[in-house]
Amino acid sequence: MADLTHVDSSGAARMVDVSEKDVSKRVAVATGRLRTTPQVVTALRENSLAKGDALATARIAGIMAAKRTPDLVPLCHPIAISGVKVELEVTDDGVDIAAQVKTADRTGVEMEALTAVSVAGLTLVDMVKALDPAAQITDIQVVEKLGGKTGAWHRDE
Amino acid sequence: MADLTHVDSSGAARMVDVSEKDVSKRVAVATGRLRTTPQVVTALRENSLAKGDALATARIAGIMAAKRTPDLVPLCHPIAISGVKVELEVTDDGVDIAAQVKTADRTGVEMEALTAVSVAGLTLVDMVKALDPAAQITDIQVVEKLGGKTGAWHRDE
Amino acid sequence: MADLTHVDSSGAARMVDVSEKDVSKRVAVATGRLRTTPQVVTALRENSLAKGDALATARIAGIMAAKRTPDLVPLCHPIAISGVKVELEVTDDGVDIAAQVKTADRTGVEMEALTAVSVAGLTLVDMVKALDPAAQITDIQVVEKLGGKTGAWHRDE
Amino acid sequence: MADLTHVDSSGAARMVDVSEKDVSKRVAVATGRLRTTPQVVTALRENSLAKGDALATARIAGIMAAKRTPDLVPLCHPIAISGVKVELEVTDDGVDIAAQVKTADRTGVEMEALTAVSVAGLTLVDMVKALDPAAQITDIQVVEKLGGKTGAWHRDE
Amino acid sequence: MADLTHVDSSGAARMVDVSEKDVSKRVAVATGRLRTTPQVVTALRENSLAKGDALATARIAGIMAAKRTPDLVPLCHPIAISGVKVELEVTDDGVDIAAQVKTADRTGVEMEALTAVSVAGLTLVDMVKALDPAAQITDIQVVEKLGGKTGAWHRDE
Amino acid sequence: MADLTHVDSSGAARMVDVSEKDVSKRVAVATGRLRTTPQVVTALRENSLAKGDALATARIAGIMAAKRTPDLVPLCHPIAISGVKVELEVTDDGVDIAAQVKTADRTGVEMEALTAVSVAGLTLVDMVKALDPAAQITDIQVVEKLGGKTGAWHRDE
Repeated sequence: MADLTHVDSSGAARMVDVSEKDVSKRVAVATGRLRTTPQVVTALRENSLAKGDALATARIAGIMAAKRTPDLVPLCHPIAISGVKVELEVTDDGVDIAAQVKTADRTGVEMEALTAVSVAGLTLVDMVKALDPAAQITDIQVVEKLGGKTGAWHRDE
Repeated sequence: MADLTHVDSSGAARMVDVSEKDVSKRVAVATGRLRTTPQVVTALRENSLAKGDALATARIAGIMAAKRTPDLVPLCHPIAISGVKVELEVTDDGVDIAAQVKTADRTGVEMEALTAVSVAGLTLVDMVKALDPAAQITDIQVVEKLGGKTGAWHRDE
Repeated sequence: MADLTHVDSSGAARMVDVSEKDVSKRVAVATGRLRTTPQVVTALRENSLAKGDALATARIAGIMAAKRTPDLVPLCHPIAISGVKVELEVTDDGVDIAAQVKTADRTGVEMEALTAVSVAGLTLVDMVKALDPAAQITDIQVVEKLGGKTGAWHRDE
Repeated sequence: MADLTHVDSSGAARMVDVSEKDVSKRVAVATGRLRTTPQVVTALRENSLAKGDALATARIAGIMAAKRTPDLVPLCHPIAISGVKVELEVTDDGVDIAAQVKTADRTGVEMEALTAVSVAGLTLVDMVKALDPAAQITDIQVVEKLGGKTGAWHRDE
Repeated sequence: MADLTHVDSSGAARMVDVSEKDVSKRVAVATGRLRTTPQVVTALRENSLAKGDALATARIAGIMAAKRTPDLVPLCHPIAISGVKVELEVTDDGVDIAAQVKTADRTGVEMEALTAVSVAGLTLVDMVKALDPAAQITDIQVVEKLGGKTGAWHRDE
Repeated sequence: MADLTHVDSSGAARMVDVSEKDVSKRVAVATGRLRTTPQVVTALRENSLAKGDALATARIAGIMAAKRTPDLVPLCHPIAISGVKVELEVTDDGVDIAAQVKTADRTGVEMEALTAVSVAGLTLVDMVKALDPAAQITDIQVVEKLGGKTGAWHRDE
C-alpha cells in the first residue's frame, strides 16, 4: 500500500493530492492597495523616485512572483501558469494593484494572483520607503475566480 | 572610469550603491493581519484545518521568505540576515502577524520583515481559503526600525 | 535535423527525453532515519529544543524540497507534483522519516520523495546539532513506487 | 468579468495568455561561442584549469539553467521541459556551444535553449577568466525550431 | 586535518577558497549587444511590442540576474553585491547593453556583470522574437574591472 | 523595544540571532555513502551510464547545493561560503562522498557540508536508479569542524 497509514498525522501539514481533479481553464483576479503620502503620489506620477521607475519595476516583480508561488507558499502545488497581468493605477492616496492569473491545470490560481499583488506591493514600498517609511500595503484579497469544480466566485461588495 | 556615464538613465530602475554605508546592527519589525471568519478562527484554535497546522506552516514560510527577499524585490540588496522571528496570534477576527529581522550589514531589513509578514499572510490564506475564499491580508507595515545612519524610527499610532 | 549529431557526446551528462512517455498517475514512497542521542529524543518528545518545533519545521522543509528537486538534481525533469506527505515518528534512537509523493506526469517521483526525506533529515540535524553534533542521517531509500511503464516496485526486506 | 479592462495597460509588460495554444511536441536548438586564447584552448584540451573540469561543469550548468529560464526571463512561461542536451566542442579559438531542448507543452523552447547556451558560456568564462580576462561569449542565437503552430524554422546561413 | 587529502581530485571541479582574500571595494563593467531588424528597432523606440516595455523589463531582469549568479554559475561564490546598474541604448541595428556591478567583498564581480548583460539580452530576445526569430546576442565581455589584488584592468580596443 | 515580547512563542520555530557571534574562519567536513550493486560500480568506473558522467554531475550538484542550504533548511542563516570541495571515491559497494566547506562568517558550515553530501548522493541515485532502483544513501554525518567559539570537533570512530 502506497499510503502512509502507519503514522498518525492529524494536524500535520501536507500538500493535498489533486491528481483526481480535472485539468481545466481557470482564472483568478486579486487586488490590493499601497497607501502612501501625497509627496510619493506626486513622485510616482512624475517618475522622479531615486530608485527609478517604480511602476514598471513593481509590475515585473509581481509577474515574476506569481511564478515563484510554490517556492514561497509551502503547500501550494507547482502549476503551469498560462498568463499573468499586473495592473497598477496611481490614485490620490497611493496605488491600486490588480493581478489576473490564468492557467489550464488541476488547481486554481488564487494564490498566484495574491502573491503577484503582494510582491508588487512590497516592491512599491521598497521604491518609496526613503520618502515614506510608513507606507502600507492593505486589502490584499481575491475578487474573482472562474473555472474548476466550484465554478465562478465573485467578491460581494 | 567605471561609471556608465555614456547613457542617460533618468527614470531607469537601478540597485543603488550601498558600499559606502556602514556595517552596523540593524533591526526591523513589521506587522500585518489576516481577516477571516469566526468559523476559521475556531478551526485555527483547534488546529482542525484540512491542510494541517496553519500557524506552524505560516511561521516557517515567513522565516524562509525573509531570506528570499532579494530574489523577489528587484532592487533589494542581498543581505546577511542574522536572525528572524515570526509571531502569530489568533484573534477574534483573524490572525495578527509580526516579524522581527536582525542583521549586521550595510542596509536596513525593513523589506525582509515586510516580506516575512506578507508570505506568512499568504500562507495563512492558502490554509484557510477552502473555508473562507474571502480571507484578506491587510495593514502590512513597518512598526519599528533600529540602527543605521537614520537611527531609530517608530510608527505613530 | 534537430538532433545534435555533429558532436560526439559519449559520457556527457544529458537530461534524457521523456516526451514519448505516457502521462500517468505515479506514486513513490521513500524513507530514511535520523540517528541521535536519548537526550535529543527526549527534547523532541517534549518540544523543548532551543530552535523550536523540530518536527513541524522538518515536515514543511521536506514538502518544500520535493518541489525544488529539479533545481537540485541536475538531470531531473521539472514535474507537476500533485501531492506530498512527510511523516515523522520519534523512536527511541532518533526519528523515522517517510515521504510519499504523487504525480500525474511523464516521469516517476522517486527523486522527489528521496529529496523530501533528505531535506527533512537535514532540517532535523540543524534543529538538534547544538545538543548532538554527531547526529546522523541514514538509510535514505525508495521503498515503493506505483505507476508508469515499469509498474509497481516494492523494496524487499 | 475576469479581464482587467478598467486599467489602460498599453506598453505595460505582461505574460501573454497561452491557454488557447495546443500542447504539442516542440524542439529548439540554439548555439553560441566562447572566444578565448590559444593558451586557454590548450588548458581546456588538457583539462588543466585550476578550477577543474570546465566542459563538464559548463554542460551541467547549461542543463540546469534551461530549467531556470522562467525564473530569469520575466515574461517566459513555466514549461514542462522533457529533455535537454548541451554539447561543447573545443575549437582552435574557443568553444562551440549548442543546446537542444524538447518539450510537449503550449509554448516553444527557444528561450530555454538560448538560456542553456548563455549560462554554459558564462560558466566557461568563469572557469577560464584567471587565464583570459578578455574571454568573450558571442553569436548566441536560435538555429532551428520544430513544432507548434508556426511549424519548422531554420536559420539561413 | 580538515583538508580532503585522501582523495585525488585532479581535474575535479571545486569552488576555490577565497577566505584569505581581502574584503575590498570592487567594480566590474560588462557589455554586450542585441542584433535585430530595423522593424524591431522601430518597435523598441515606439514601445509598441506586444509583450510590453522591453527595455524596462530587460533592465530589471538583468539586475535580478546579477543577484542569481551563484545559483547559475556552479563555482561562483555567493557575494554581497552593493549596487547594480543596467543600461540599454537602442541603436540602428539593435540594443547596446552595459552592466556595472559594485561590491565590498572577497571576490570580483565580473561574473555578476556578465550575467546581468546575458540575462538582459535573453529578455530582449524574448520580447522581440515574435517579430525577429533570428535575433542574436553577441559580444558579451568584461570591459573594465577595478579593485582587488590584481587591481584595475581595462579592455584594449 | 524591538523585541516581540507581547506574544508567547515557546516551541515556535525561529532563526536564532547570531549578530553577536564573531566573524571567524570556519571549516566543516561531512561524509556519506551511496550503496549500490556491483553492476553499477562497474558502470561508474567505466563511465557508461545512460545519463552520462555521474561523478562529475554529482560533484557539481553537491557544490551548488551547498550554496542553496539556507533556501532548503528553514532556520539556517544565509552565509558567505568561501570555498567548497566535493570528493567522490568509487568503492566496491558504492561511492564514498565527502564535502569540505569553508567560510569566514558568523556561523558554522556543518549544514552546508551535509547538504552538499546529501545532494551529491541524491544525484548519484538519480544517475543509477535505472540500473539499481534500490540504491541507498547512508551515514550522512559531520566528521570534523574547525573554528568558531566551540573550536575544533572531531568525530570519534
